[in-house]
Amino acid sequence: MDLNRCAALLQEKNDILIVTHKRPDGDTIGSAAALCRGLRALGKQAFLFPNPEITETYAGWAAPYLAPVGYVPAFVMSVDLADVTLFPHDFAGHIELSVDHHGSNTGYADQTLVMADRAACGEVIYLLLQEMGVPIDIETAELLYVALSTDTGCFCYGNTNANTLQIASELLALGVNNGAINKRLFRTVSRARILLEGMICSGMQFFADGRIVVSTVTLEMMERSGATDNDCDDLANISSKVAGGLVALTVKEKPDSKTKVSIRTTGVVNANEIAQKFGGGGHAMASGCAFDCDYQEATRRLVAAIEEVLL
Amino acid sequence: MDLNRCAALLQEKNDILIVTHKRPDGDTIGSAAALCRGLRALGKQAFLFPNPEITETYAGWAAPYLAPVGYVPAFVMSVDLADVTLFPHDFAGHIELSVDHHGSNTGYADQTLVMADRAACGEVIYLLLQEMGVPIDIETAELLYVALSTDTGCFCYGNTNANTLQIASELLALGVNNGAINKRLFRTVSRARILLEGMICSGMQFFADGRIVVSTVTLEMMERSGATDNDCDDLANISSKVAGGLVALTVKEKPDSKTKVSIRTTGVVNANEIAQKFGGGGHAMASGCAFDCDYQEATRRLVAAIEEVLL
Repeated sequence: MDLNRCAALLQEKNDILIVTHKRPDGDTIGSAAALCRGLRALGKQAFLFPNPEITETYAGWAAPYLAPVGYVPAFVMSVDLADVTLFPHDFAGHIELSVDHHGSNTGYADQTLVMADRAACGEVIYLLLQEMGVPIDIETAELLYVALSTDTGCFCYGNTNANTLQIASELLALGVNNGAINKRLFRTVSRARILLEGMICSGMQFFADGRIVVSTVTLEMMERSGATDNDCDDLANISSKVAGGLVALTVKEKPDSKTKVSIRTTGVVNANEIAQKFGGGGHAMASGCAFDCDYQEATRRLVAAIEEVLL
Repeated sequence: MDLNRCAALLQEKNDILIVTHKRPDGDTIGSAAALCRGLRALGKQAFLFPNPEITETYAGWAAPYLAPVGYVPAFVMSVDLADVTLFPHDFAGHIELSVDHHGSNTGYADQTLVMADRAACGEVIYLLLQEMGVPIDIETAELLYVALSTDTGCFCYGNTNANTLQIASELLALGVNNGAINKRLFRTVSRARILLEGMICSGMQFFADGRIVVSTVTLEMMERSGATDNDCDDLANISSKVAGGLVALTVKEKPDSKTKVSIRTTGVVNANEIAQKFGGGGHAMASGCAFDCDYQEATRRLVAAIEEVLL
């Protein structure tokens, strides 16, 4: 469906529950909260599903909109949620509308608005609010800014385009304190994270003349640095920014001699094909796989497989 | 002077030499090259002063515009250059026009256009080109994008505002490949830099309950990592992003038992006042000073002085 019909559908509805995706990030939370606020501005009752995995980073932005215990909605929709495997709860067959920007949206909802050329779902919500005639106040603008900036790495990732910056500019004109938000989201790390990064950088390994770059994160490093899973966002960015690297691995030791690996490539090597050799998958430039062996063995196997492709 | 009068002045001139500042960054180079290209589009002869300190990062953008040996200009101007101490060569008394965005511009030129509310000098150049009626082609747009993105840390620093993003959006609409430029400028580091960061993070020190965070860079670390001065841009960002820190020091060992320190603060403590106690200076949130003692002693003295302010 298009923006216009989606806006018309929402205008008709009331008692709306908005569902965010598993391991919620700033785009799903910011989009959901901004839409919720906009629907309320139209006089409707609307809430966010209380996503159990929400982290401290985003909890404050979601707090005013969380559904109370026992809330029974008349209409359930999702935002920024591409696939049923990303449901934070069993919503199978209950999602009546999905608003998204993932071209990979599987069409699990009764009706779907996907704008795949948009860098963030927050952009779609911005256009939807405008289409519904909702005035965007500074609180809504802040939520949308959180959405846009999160999904674009603060406007640094390659998905950032003229539309993204145009909307972000309009949000700042409404008074969003981008300096404070950016400092918090992109320029603050915990002490444990700094120590962990120190260990990762110091232990970085290079293979095939530096074309393969490997970050290793052992359980011992996690313990010694005091890092928790909350300190591990975007660890894959570290090895993938080393000059000369074509394939960046981030190898994470798991309990019971298991290993999880994230694979990032520049595009010369297909990350999805490599992951598939080990039962994993993903995209051409970002994929992942898991091993039932220790991290040294997993690294050896992966490096050997990649060297074969590189030669 | 205002934009309109500055544009009128440039329209009258020919054989123009554009001077960039010492240790040139993307804003001074991108601004100068974009203006140079714009002046040439108006049929004028214009060149950039061949700044001897230009690094590989920016050299390619400046290359088509560098003045040949022996070039004698009829009009000399500077861009993004606030003070005579930042001249890359002895231009004292020769600068007829300064186009800048630093509120601290000392007025060393015969005429000065300063727009201090602009995040990057590239924004001023964009407006100036429009005022002169120069069509902005994709090459000019790329140069201006380099300028804007450099001075705003890819739109993440607090100086980024609605105008910055509005202009950046227009530049992307002209076809600038922001993904490739951002990857190169903001998401690529040398192997030596990664190793150096590993050592810095691993050796980070915390004082006053973590309110003082100290990064140390010794000569031995530089040698062991293979890092050169080119790998040391923005090292001060590392300690200043640690959560809980109010004052971030980056202490650099220099030959002959000397030490240079950069001081960053959140604003609670005045960085300029601390630096002044040791013969240095700067701004409230970013300053620097030098010591004629080894780095351990310099750290001790600085931490003691900061603890006094914090208590």
